[in-house]
Parts: sequence; C-alpha cells; structure tokens
Amino acid sequence: MSLTIKLHVFTSHSHRLNLNFPTKPTPNGFTSYNYPNIRPKPIYHSDPLVSIVYNTKPIMHSPSRSVQAPIKSSLIEPDGGKLVDLVVPETDRAERVLEAQALPKVSLTKIDLEWVHVISEGWASPLRGFMREDEYLQSLHFNSLRTKDGSVVNMSLPIVLAIDDETKERIGSETNVGLVGPNGDLIAILRGIEIYKHNKEERTARTWGTTAPGLPYVEEVITSAGNWLIGGDLEVLEPIKYNDGLDHYRLSPQQLRKEFDGRQADAVFAFQLRNPARINAGANFYIVGRDPAGMGHPTEKRDLYDPDHGKKVLSMAPGLEKLNILPFRVAAYDTVQKKMAFFDPSRAKDFLFISGTKMRNYAKTGENPPDGFMCPGGWKVLVNYYESLQTEEASQQPAVVSA
Amino acid sequence: MSLTIKLHVFTSHSHRLNLNFPTKPTPNGFTSYNYPNIRPKPIYHSDPLVSIVYNTKPIMHSPSRSVQAPIKSSLIEPDGGKLVDLVVPETDRAERVLEAQALPKVSLTKIDLEWVHVISEGWASPLRGFMREDEYLQSLHFNSLRTKDGSVVNMSLPIVLAIDDETKERIGSETNVGLVGPNGDLIAILRGIEIYKHNKEERTARTWGTTAPGLPYVEEVITSAGNWLIGGDLEVLEPIKYNDGLDHYRLSPQQLRKEFDGRQADAVFAFQLRNPARINAGANFYIVGRDPAGMGHPTEKRDLYDPDHGKKVLSMAPGLEKLNILPFRVAAYDTVQKKMAFFDPSRAKDFLFISGTKMRNYAKTGENPPDGFMCPGGWKVLVNYYESLQTEEASQQPAVVSA
Repeated sequence: MSLTIKLHVFTSHSHRLNLNFPTKPTPNGFTSYNYPNIRPKPIYHSDPLVSIVYNTKPIMHSPSRSVQAPIKSSLIEPDGGKLVDLVVPETDRAERVLEAQALPKVSLTKIDLEWVHVISEGWASPLRGFMREDEYLQSLHFNSLRTKDGSVVNMSLPIVLAIDDETKERIGSETNVGLVGPNGDLIAILRGIEIYKHNKEERTARTWGTTAPGLPYVEEVITSAGNWLIGGDLEVLEPIKYNDGLDHYRLSPQQLRKEFDGRQADAVFAFQLRNPARINAGANFYIVGRDPAGMGHPTEKRDLYDPDHGKKVLSMAPGLEKLNILPFRVAAYDTVQKKMAFFDPSRAKDFLFISGTKMRNYAKTGENPPDGFMCPGGWKVLVNYYESLQTEEASQQPAVVSA
Repeated sequence: MSLTIKLHVFTSHSHRLNLNFPTKPTPNGFTSYNYPNIRPKPIYHSDPLVSIVYNTKPIMHSPSRSVQAPIKSSLIEPDGGKLVDLVVPETDRAERVLEAQALPKVSLTKIDLEWVHVISEGWASPLRGFMREDEYLQSLHFNSLRTKDGSVVNMSLPIVLAIDDETKERIGSETNVGLVGPNGDLIAILRGIEIYKHNKEERTARTWGTTAPGLPYVEEVITSAGNWLIGGDLEVLEPIKYNDGLDHYRLSPQQLRKEFDGRQADAVFAFQLRNPARINAGANFYIVGRDPAGMGHPTEKRDLYDPDHGKKVLSMAPGLEKLNILPFRVAAYDTVQKKMAFFDPSRAKDFLFISGTKMRNYAKTGENPPDGFMCPGGWKVLVNYYESLQTEEASQQPAVVSA
C-alpha cells in the first residue's frame, strides 16, 4: 500500500474548457475528456505524483449545469477545515523521544508505518491517529465520520492498528504507547489509547463485500494481524522517510497545496487510479471510470463489483458533496468495428477489454494488439520503451548478481 | 419478518421524569429507567403493538443535557417530512386493477408481500417503492438515503424485490409491472421499474458483516431469490391484510400518530426488540440495550456482533440525529452475589446471561431459575401462564387435527 496519486492542475489563463462534451476514447483504452488547445507541461521533472499541467485558463463547467455557466473554483478546503500535521516540532523532539523510550512499545509492520505516514501528513484529515472504536464503527457502517462541528467527511476504509494478545497484556492500563518501526526505530507516540476487539470477519465483509479467501490486503495484512485494535492520537517523532531514493517525490498535502497556490490553480483534477486521491491534497475534481481497477473476485470467475458501482457510490457518498465527481463511460475494443468504442451492454460479446496490464504484456512480449486498438505510432513508442528496459536489465543483471 | 413494535407513550400531565438517573435492573434481566410515580395503563385492550401508557406529564431530560433543562417535545416528524401512503384511493381502484391486469406479472413471496405492507403504509418513508439501484447502493454502503432536499434518513436494510432470469426476460422493456401475491391476488403496480443485478454475496456481507451459512434471513429469503432486483414506485391496490384475525392489531404509522395526537402525547418511547421501531410511527425516544437480541454467529461459538455495538452504531447513525437514543447498560445474573447486577467485564465468568428464550424454556419445563434471578411471586405468574397454555393446547389439539 503506497500512495500513487495523479493530479492535474489547471491554472489561470484564458481558455474555456468544456468538461462535459465532447468525450472521446484515447488509444490506451481509457476515455479522456477532449481538451482543445491545451498544452501539457510537467510541474516537476519526472515527478510521478503530479504528471501534467495545463497552462491555460479554463472556465469550469459542472456536468449538472448548463455548458455556459462558469464554476467559481479555488483550492478545496481540506476535510475538517484544517490539514492535520502530526509531526512533533523539532524543538520538542528530544523531549518526546525520551518520553517515548519509557513507554510500552508496539511494533509496526511496513504497512502500519505507511499508515502512520498517511495520517501524520494529513492525507486522512481530520483523523489525528489510528481509529478508536467510534471512528472505526462509523467508517465500517457509514463510510464516513462525523466531525465535532457536525459536518461529515468521507472515510470508507478503516485506518486501524492491530496488536496481539501479548502486546495488549504488556500495555496493561497505560494510556500512551511508543510505536516502533520495522527496523527498530522509534517512530511515534500514540496517546489516549483505546484497545478494542478486532473482528476480522466483520471488518473484511463490510469493507470488501466478500469474505472469500484471496483478497490481497486481507491475506497480507488482516488475517495475520492481532485480535485487538489500538486507537489513539499520533505524535510522530520525525517525518516518515523510506530512504529508497524516492522520498523527494512523496509530497505531503501541505506541499502540494503550496505548489498549487503558487501557481494560482483554478482547479485540481485527480484521476482515479488504484488508490483514491484526496480532497486533502487540494483536488476538487475527481475523474472516475469503472470500479477501482476492476478487481476480480478472488474465487469466482467474475468481477468483484459491478463496473458502474465505483462511480455511482462515489457520486452519492456522504462527505464528498464538495468534490466534483466526473464519471466517464467505459470504452473497450469493439471487435466488429475494429476500434475503441463506448461499451454497449446490449452486444457485450463484441467487446474486448484490454487492461493496462494486458497492454503492457503485449508490448513486453512483442505481441501486437488487435488492429485499431491503438495508433501504430503510439504503439511503437510503447514497444521501444519495453525493449529499452529489457536491454537495460540485461546489461545490469550481472552487477546485481555479484552485489 | 413481521413488525413487532412496542411503543410507550407519555401524555401531558404533571410529572417530571428523569431519563438519565437513576437506572436499576429489573427482575427479568433487563435494565429499566426508574420512573417514579408512573401509573401504567394500556391504550388498547390486549394490543401487543402499544403495550403501556403512562398517564403522567413528564418533562423530558436528554442524557446530554443538565438534569434540570426541559426538552420541548412533540410528535417527531416522519423521515422525509411527510408519511408515505401508497394505497390507491377507492375511487381509482377499479381503473388501476384493469391496468394491472394487462401488465407483465411479478410473483411475490410471503416475505415480499410483508415488505409491500411496510412500504405502502409509510414505515419506510420516504421510500415510495422497492429500492432502485441508487437507493440500494446508498443503503448498502452508507446505511442511509439522501432525500431530494439534501437531508439524510436512516435506512440500514435494503428493501428490495428479487426476480429470476425468466421473469426479467418476460418483462422485457416494459416500464410498469403488476405484483401478484402468494395466493394469486393482484396486489400492486410497480411503476418506472429499474432492473439491476442482485449480488447476493455482497448484499449479505455488507448487511450482516458475515457470509457464513446459516443466517435465517439469508437462507430463507436471499439464497433462493432470483439474480435480479427490480425497483420502482408502488401503487397498492388495497390495504394489505392477512385475514388471520390479527389485522386489527396492525396499526399503520398514520393510525398510531392519530392516536398519539389524540392523547396529546409529549413523547413516544420505542423499546428495542428484534425489529427496529420507527421514527415514522412517531417514536422520538428509542431505548436500546445490547445488539439486537444478541444474534449468535451461525458457524462459530460466539456472538455475531459485540454486545455494545448496537447502541454505539445507532447513536452515531446518520439520519437518527432527531431520535433520542437511550442506551442502557447490560445486566446479567451475578452468580457470586446471586442476584441480577450490571455486567462487569473484568469478572465476566461470574455472570450468567439468561435470555428471554432460556427464561421461557425454564418456565415451560417447570425448571427453576437460579436464586435471585427473579422474585418468586413474579416467577410463579410466568410458570402458571405456561401451564395454562399447555392445558389449552392439550384441550384444543384434537379439534385442530380434525379440521
């Protein structure tokens, strides 16, 4: 579980953008909105987080309004009104480390540590730590949290920390604990803790709508986890870094907002990928197609969810009213017309779904996709890229083996 | 599935009632609020729906307010503002029956017919028929529905009608269908229909938090149901009656509200039984103990839900803000003190949970409950009642057999 977010930023210039019509399928099998005369330019050199900037001045149109009516837009407020930042100020750090050393310890897995990262930077604002039971139950039953001022924020996935019986016993009646990373580093203090039962079956059933064995997150994270959940307020001793050479790409919501503000962004678009992009990073438009990446059922030969449910559920979700959800239609390869076309359920058998994975596999293995799936020039770029990767791998392999 | 609702009504006299303190356990194992000087009197002779009236004038106190602050109370607004009534006026009946006869037919099971009853009388207001997909998804994911004016109503159980492949085929592109009861009677028209997939696994997992085999409603209603759900607006040709001699006990929300208004009720209390009582019938106080009737897990030796989750989830549920939830503590038989006492989790093994079912079984079989579980005089009443039932059964049995 790592955050992969693609944000598109529109800044103030003089172009009118029609978000509603026309739409057309792109060569890679996904539908794109048609942005006439837009000049893409990257914000950051080779930054995978923020991939494209359109330096134009669009006047936004909501799908539900007339094409002529402009939308006033500015950076969207973070959930709960204020971005959470749970990293201890440097001046207090030494003192907090001393305090943490004296507390009972809870070990974090690699995934737990990534959740500490998510919470500490405010991606899950207004959450200030791992969920206590009242937050967990709201997330599980209502896919949302009610804040103290009565407003509702979207929170469809419980963000929880599991501990085993032995750890629970060791904590006893202490109210604070220290969190220790997979490498043994002291990471954070969890304050005002609450320990409650971890009903894994119910958590899985209500989160995924199935308890069939084989869901990756369930198998890797939940099944082996302890029988208790521990909630509380986080104080992170220093910003979470992975030291993998990629840390400078991992911008926090605060950093992203600063960048968008500096560019006088009128609107920030997030595209649906495997992981939900966040209001908290400043995205006020969310472009969503079929259900997240089309998860297959782990034991049955069918999709786990209906392809349309992702966008339907998001467009009705409590707490997402302020986000402009832009659903788009599913496109697939029409084997009769031999080109990409909007999927027509009445002749489903004529359509071939070529996923990103399948497309990349074609390119890797040198196999050609069906005629009309992609323009030949574009396809060649992809094939050349994978060939270059293989050449690179072949030349590096001996070095890796000897290392 | 039949509605069993126990409503308590408080009418205008001059008694001050403290809902908050003190509480004490009652002899039957449930905790009651201590209502000093309240004189119970039934509204209807032997009416199981509305069992007790307190003819006093309480001034209500919310648990969250100071003991002295009075609550202004009157009959609570139905969800969505107006009670739904979907029975065709008598003047239009003949015409509607003719129309229904010409439509494609959908057969209702006994349970489906009970849901038609629930919807048509407004128990599920503002729902105007079996759920269409957008309502179904909101119920499944958010336990609530957003109404057109933006307000949110609680709707934790999908109210849906399943059809099989053959029926779907037969309906084709018709927009209205006729609903036929288990006895072949024409019951209703369903208008503006929408047919969508019935993902039984997801429905079960998200509704009950388990897909383990053996949940009664799942086994009896869902597993055998068709692969499609059909939603639409109901027009019921005449009020649903069961002709079992009990129809006069089945008051509609409208009838109950009229009765409460006539009695100038300040407050209407609903006690948590197996089925949720409804705001729509006028209840503005909801007294809730452990999770609904303590469902056992169908395949594991444990409760399906945590005993406290029922009241916790209800007290946080979107759409129930206007309902005063009155949680009460769990009481059980303390085998050390040999009396009923509040359950103390730190010495769980000392407590014996004697359910209503177990208690009635003791009474039926003539076995005595442990000392201090119930006052001997009260116990004798129960035992005598069950003895009288057995005598009655014994004398009636031959007549039933020969019928």
